[in-house]
Amino acid sequence: MRVLKGHGTGNDFVLVPDLDGALELTPELVRALCARHTGIGADGVLRVVRAAKDPDGARYAADAEFFMDYRNADGSLAEMCGNGVRVFMAYLQRACVVDHDAAVATRGGIVRVQTGADGVITVDMGQPRVLADRPVVTAAPLPPTPGARVELPNPHVVVEVGEPADLAALELSDPPLVEPARPGGQNVEFVVRTGPRQLLMRVHERGVGETQSCGTGICAAVVAAATAEGSERDDTVWQVQVPGGSCSVTWRADGTVLLSGPAVIVAELDLDDSWLEAALAAAGSA
Amino acid sequence: MRVLKGHGTGNDFVLVPDLDGALELTPELVRALCARHTGIGADGVLRVVRAAKDPDGARYAADAEFFMDYRNADGSLAEMCGNGVRVFMAYLQRACVVDHDAAVATRGGIVRVQTGADGVITVDMGQPRVLADRPVVTAAPLPPTPGARVELPNPHVVVEVGEPADLAALELSDPPLVEPARPGGQNVEFVVRTGPRQLLMRVHERGVGETQSCGTGICAAVVAAATAEGSERDDTVWQVQVPGGSCSVTWRADGTVLLSGPAVIVAELDLDDSWLEAALAAAGSA
Repeated sequence: MRVLKGHGTGNDFVLVPDLDGALELTPELVRALCARHTGIGADGVLRVVRAAKDPDGARYAADAEFFMDYRNADGSLAEMCGNGVRVFMAYLQRACVVDHDAAVATRGGIVRVQTGADGVITVDMGQPRVLADRPVVTAAPLPPTPGARVELPNPHVVVEVGEPADLAALELSDPPLVEPARPGGQNVEFVVRTGPRQLLMRVHERGVGETQSCGTGICAAVVAAATAEGSERDDTVWQVQVPGGSCSVTWRADGTVLLSGPAVIVAELDLDDSWLEAALAAAGSA
Repeated sequence: MRVLKGHGTGNDFVLVPDLDGALELTPELVRALCARHTGIGADGVLRVVRAAKDPDGARYAADAEFFMDYRNADGSLAEMCGNGVRVFMAYLQRACVVDHDAAVATRGGIVRVQTGADGVITVDMGQPRVLADRPVVTAAPLPPTPGARVELPNPHVVVEVGEPADLAALELSDPPLVEPARPGGQNVEFVVRTGPRQLLMRVHERGVGETQSCGTGICAAVVAAATAEGSERDDTVWQVQVPGGSCSVTWRADGTVLLSGPAVIVAELDLDDSWLEAALAAAGSA
């Protein structure tokens, strides 16, 4: 079984090519692949399948040739991932099955993805929704600070912090406290303005912890910062630096948000037969 | 460039076959390979080279055909690793360059390694040294507790804890406090006796943090437990369960310690040319 490993700004994935939908990707196999010490190690799995060949993708088959079957490292189903879809696109181009422009089906709907001449990949992340309430976020040593609630459509709270040193000092090994709490939780982005339309950011993802990067979080940070300064939907380019790299974001006049960033393929892997058998046997006995 | 990923009880490695010593394995390349999110991800790199073809291995070439050039994830040189040498042996057998018994040269000297019919690999870890002093170890919520100092030859302090629940409750995200402190630090093993010659263990490795497994730590734990009960060097088999799996240990009448455990090859990898170029370019500019 041949798979690939890739990442987008440090958000890493095992890509499983399965164009004809022949593979049964069990939660146990996903967990085995994503295990950092005993498997390949990744934040999630991206199975690459023709939309027409997948039960969840078939409804999109008329408008998108490929379906991104995205799973979290814990084996659960996931909808969309702004970093993952770039890595997915990098694979499609590498495999010569798409040109520089593609519609990719995901559980969150169809996403338009384009690769520029510089290799940077741009994803249309759809329309954000900025909510009116200002939940209060606490993360030591930050005093309680009101943040902006943004849905993309997953839930975010964005908090502006004074200086890069304040950002670096944040203790994010535990989830930040958000009041009022949203049922199901939210991702929390802490941002510092380092220049005009330039943000430095750290992110705590619900159910995961602090991560190197979060695609929707990067977009939410720009939406919150632009709203705060009254420059919504002005079609300009923002730069956001996260621990895993850098992305740019444009909030367009039509209300949609474009996320642009790198996608890196690290290696192609032949899984060892014995390892795979053991992983599948564990699945059978689980 | 083709490499492999493997692990021994969750202690994981990128294996770099370089039998003729043609590769320049820079610290930057080691760090790039071991990076969990942007590389392959591993605790260290095991370069496989003929002893005669390596400057550090050549002095062993008369007695050992292969040299285990072992590097920590931070790029620094390392001597020996009880888990790593099993994975190294698994590779040598897979590549059909040794039979079930081999002498492997390491920076810590020549190590005898044997594979049993069950695939379990046994390593002669040499003679431990039990020191007379009883340093006091503190790790919340454990009260200050005297431990045994064992050298193998790297330094360990082994602390017996009452119950499995006490072991599970230990907070090891910070290094345990050891008094008197040893310059350079030490690994600290916390063990619970779960039956005759059966130990359950967690380990904090100096400079790394809590790990899934530590080969010399497993041996040190048995040496300390056997010494405490007066069954030193009695040639019996102990079982030690660590978070990453299970190993067995025999303290032989001749004073040497044998460590036996599994070695798993997860995958063979073709590193992407662009990724490798970027990793090497980063090395050049560092």
